[in-house]
Amino acid sequence: MNQLALQHITDSAYCFPVSDNEIVIRLRTAADDIKEAYIIYESKYKIAESRHQKLMTKIGTGRIYDYYSIRLKLDDTRLAYVFYLNDGENYYYFSEDGASLDYDFSKGYYNFFQYPYINEADIHHKVEWLCNSCFYQIFIDRFCIGDDNKDKSYINLKWGDKPTPKSFAGGDIKGIISKLDYIKSIGCDALYLTPIFRSPSNHKYDIVDYYDIDEHFGSKEDFKNLVEQLHKRNMRIVLDAVFNHVSERNELFQDVIKKGKDSEYFDYFVIRGDRPCKNPLNYEVFAGCDYMPKWNTSNPAVQDYLIAIALYYIQEYDIDGWRLDVSDEISHDFWRKFRKAIKSVKKDAAIIGENWHDASAYLRGDQYDSIMNYAFTKACLDYFAYNKLDATKMAQKLNDILMRNTDTVNDMMLNLLDSHDTDRFLNEVKGDKDKLYAALCLLYLFPGAPSIFYGTECYTMGGYDPDCRRCMDWDTALNKDNKAVLLLSKLSLIRKKCEFSFEGTLVNASQDGRVLILKRHGQRADAELYINQTDEVGTYNELQIAPGSFRLFADGGEIL
Amino acid sequence: MNQLALQHITDSAYCFPVSDNEIVIRLRTAADDIKEAYIIYESKYKIAESRHQKLMTKIGTGRIYDYYSIRLKLDDTRLAYVFYLNDGENYYYFSEDGASLDYDFSKGYYNFFQYPYINEADIHHKVEWLCNSCFYQIFIDRFCIGDDNKDKSYINLKWGDKPTPKSFAGGDIKGIISKLDYIKSIGCDALYLTPIFRSPSNHKYDIVDYYDIDEHFGSKEDFKNLVEQLHKRNMRIVLDAVFNHVSERNELFQDVIKKGKDSEYFDYFVIRGDRPCKNPLNYEVFAGCDYMPKWNTSNPAVQDYLIAIALYYIQEYDIDGWRLDVSDEISHDFWRKFRKAIKSVKKDAAIIGENWHDASAYLRGDQYDSIMNYAFTKACLDYFAYNKLDATKMAQKLNDILMRNTDTVNDMMLNLLDSHDTDRFLNEVKGDKDKLYAALCLLYLFPGAPSIFYGTECYTMGGYDPDCRRCMDWDTALNKDNKAVLLLSKLSLIRKKCEFSFEGTLVNASQDGRVLILKRHGQRADAELYINQTDEVGTYNELQIAPGSFRLFADGGEIL
Repeated sequence: MNQLALQHITDSAYCFPVSDNEIVIRLRTAADDIKEAYIIYESKYKIAESRHQKLMTKIGTGRIYDYYSIRLKLDDTRLAYVFYLNDGENYYYFSEDGASLDYDFSKGYYNFFQYPYINEADIHHKVEWLCNSCFYQIFIDRFCIGDDNKDKSYINLKWGDKPTPKSFAGGDIKGIISKLDYIKSIGCDALYLTPIFRSPSNHKYDIVDYYDIDEHFGSKEDFKNLVEQLHKRNMRIVLDAVFNHVSERNELFQDVIKKGKDSEYFDYFVIRGDRPCKNPLNYEVFAGCDYMPKWNTSNPAVQDYLIAIALYYIQEYDIDGWRLDVSDEISHDFWRKFRKAIKSVKKDAAIIGENWHDASAYLRGDQYDSIMNYAFTKACLDYFAYNKLDATKMAQKLNDILMRNTDTVNDMMLNLLDSHDTDRFLNEVKGDKDKLYAALCLLYLFPGAPSIFYGTECYTMGGYDPDCRRCMDWDTALNKDNKAVLLLSKLSLIRKKCEFSFEGTLVNASQDGRVLILKRHGQRADAELYINQTDEVGTYNELQIAPGSFRLFADGGEIL
Repeated sequence: MNQLALQHITDSAYCFPVSDNEIVIRLRTAADDIKEAYIIYESKYKIAESRHQKLMTKIGTGRIYDYYSIRLKLDDTRLAYVFYLNDGENYYYFSEDGASLDYDFSKGYYNFFQYPYINEADIHHKVEWLCNSCFYQIFIDRFCIGDDNKDKSYINLKWGDKPTPKSFAGGDIKGIISKLDYIKSIGCDALYLTPIFRSPSNHKYDIVDYYDIDEHFGSKEDFKNLVEQLHKRNMRIVLDAVFNHVSERNELFQDVIKKGKDSEYFDYFVIRGDRPCKNPLNYEVFAGCDYMPKWNTSNPAVQDYLIAIALYYIQEYDIDGWRLDVSDEISHDFWRKFRKAIKSVKKDAAIIGENWHDASAYLRGDQYDSIMNYAFTKACLDYFAYNKLDATKMAQKLNDILMRNTDTVNDMMLNLLDSHDTDRFLNEVKGDKDKLYAALCLLYLFPGAPSIFYGTECYTMGGYDPDCRRCMDWDTALNKDNKAVLLLSKLSLIRKKCEFSFEGTLVNASQDGRVLILKRHGQRADAELYINQTDEVGTYNELQIAPGSFRLFADGGEIL
């Protein structure tokens, strides 16, 4: 047995409660190294005398590791355990002290693994609607002009022309409202809107006033109406919380510019010196942009100021959650306070971070519910677009990504192929629609909630910002023969029909190495997806998958 | 290179800020596997274009792993990095995606390791006095009778007789006060007292009234006097916070017994049914003891109730910190709130958990400062008493323990050879005083603060509770030729002279496998300890260490 590969970390994605008497335990071993993994466990006060032993399930193979898991139901949640591993020759115990051929349970209280007690306050509860939603992300200025009576003098981009960083095309909230039935018709039932607050830019990530709806987008009444219309359709809405930084035009920063150290808001920012100075830059900003000073989110007054905003939109407008911009640069301390405040006013509000990297330190149930899953995005690009991963490696990659986080978090992940911050996926696959269709199937069947960037369904192309933010092509979107739209609505129906949850997910590849296989277990039905991105026919059991094609089965029959 | 062994976890003990512009990065590899480990790093907004490269230091070898570390000073704390590893044949990059022979920095934003931004609120700051203290743990009933005028009718144990679980020997707070000069004279400058609150037992872990000093121990005035006398001597005091459970005689639980579900305190406990019942037991308790109901620390009202107690003793009596009884069974949520409250009234109050196992999930700077280091205790037992570890394995074990936690936490660890909850160390080494002396040297030189259980210095023997709680042998303690006392005072002087911090710590064994070597770097001087537990002379460089002996050097000269 390869001891170097063994990994178990208590109180992490390797060991987490899912209810007041259920816990999931995972173990990592070298790939293809052991025959059987058991868990030996008991209440910590009894384990010296008596023990249970259960076989764990191999739930996936990563690039170089295998992952095992088991869900235990406990009478006493003071769980003590060690692993018992059979490599075909020997049986090893694996405890906090590593692997050994024997184990002294009478001294186990020094070195068994343990989850000391399941406290309700430490359980990360699922936001059920988040698990079951299909998201539609809208970059508002480019989606739809709904207000014909507004002052359009700010519009400088003809609908359909290529955008520049300074383009204004005129999309607004009324435009979104007018398209809700359309969005619902393609199977999406949750919106993620880029910022709606008063801001000089087209993207509005440099916010001047968080309490005001940007006049280009509409009025407070418009926004209230949007939320009402959404909820009437049983749809949800998540807004963009830009709490890492602010526009320099924000009145608090303006006060600091005027008064320097005498401003009561001086410590709301991180300034080296007596007043902010741009040359040389002496205050912290976002991404080197001197017009976006960074909030000092370690300051309790700033925490209160920002959290009040988050609560206001829940309490005043009844929004359903927040996507957190640049959330990884903000303190854990802030997000803990944020979560408590948010969940106390709306228990099932969703909190979705923007962390492009492993975010497990934010996903323990005390901060976010999930993140935008850019690791999934990158895997899809490497598999479908860049030819860096074949089916086998893609399966391994996806398993490694899934094992970063708990089952609970995996079910709430916001999975995406692209966003306002990336090249368009269709661009990266060079316009190959078949690749888009296959990727959309994977997106919809992967654990978590799919998020479609507006325009995906009408084959919008575009490179990096601002090119990925082109105007919506409504002619194509509304064309009745649009295959992408038909696919999306079918996929959303499968999700509804099956009600997937992470347990039972299986990602691997066919023996011939050509077919990526994703099997999902649902509360009500199961589904299987087979993707072949090679130039040859792929085979799995009796099944054949044509080159560059996919097959999808759900509830016992072939859907696509 | 063995890829299976590679480990780096961002935002963990492998990556933690130590100031607003300094961060420590660690890497784990297979033991003796690679030639050089480098870190390649830059601000995440620049790393596609430019990069720094620095050699990491191998800081220790564990049972099967090597550990590397580097402390970086950063201009921009938005740190992006990958490792660059030379195994003698190849150079590998190691990122979130694992090891590879090449690495595309232009797409690095998807998979480099990162510490997104150092926020002040997330830095775990050291409690300096905790790092530099020598603790003396007192089980009050058995230490010293100071109040001759009190009602002694409760005393049922003659001083010096063997205690039973129900023994009362009469030790009290006045007794402690009378011995403060003694305690200081043996080099201890911080007290950890087992509980002082009103309780029917001799140990007082079943508390009836947290706001009352137990009458057997003295009065509130006595306790006030104790703290004053301590502080006058520049000594500190840490009390025992028994917040996991309470005595059934506590008035809140009594109210629940009387009123059942109608009691406003019903949800302060975890009761299945309408009222607490002992047979069958239907409420959560500590360790199966029905007279110690467990608090529901997920309930915010309970959190407030317990935190108010913790604050009261800081604000009313000016105590210096809390040791947290059975802290691992209490919710993370509670400890986060607890820490915020405690640190807001006394920034340098120490918070020391009682977790016998890997407690890294509690030691990220948001909960405790450190724990009672029972993993160290067990290693010492295995090395000195049970012959389960030779010098080489002991060094490996100690390195593995150190690598569980950050440098910051390591400097605050409360290290101990024994306590009121274990057999006496001297008992385990069968009364061998030379083993005790060597172990005390290791205790005092190991990263963290040493904690001496009262009586260690007078060679008190004793097995498990209640035998480890024998009466203090004052004749031996005060004997001027007592070697243990002389040793302790010398060791405490070395600590004071050197002012150790974790950086620069080196634990290994001599090539002949006979000598355990501990080298420490101090702010003001360095020290080296060599322990030989074999029957043969051990050799390290020019140095010889006699069988069953040790040698200790500090500030350039041999001390012992």
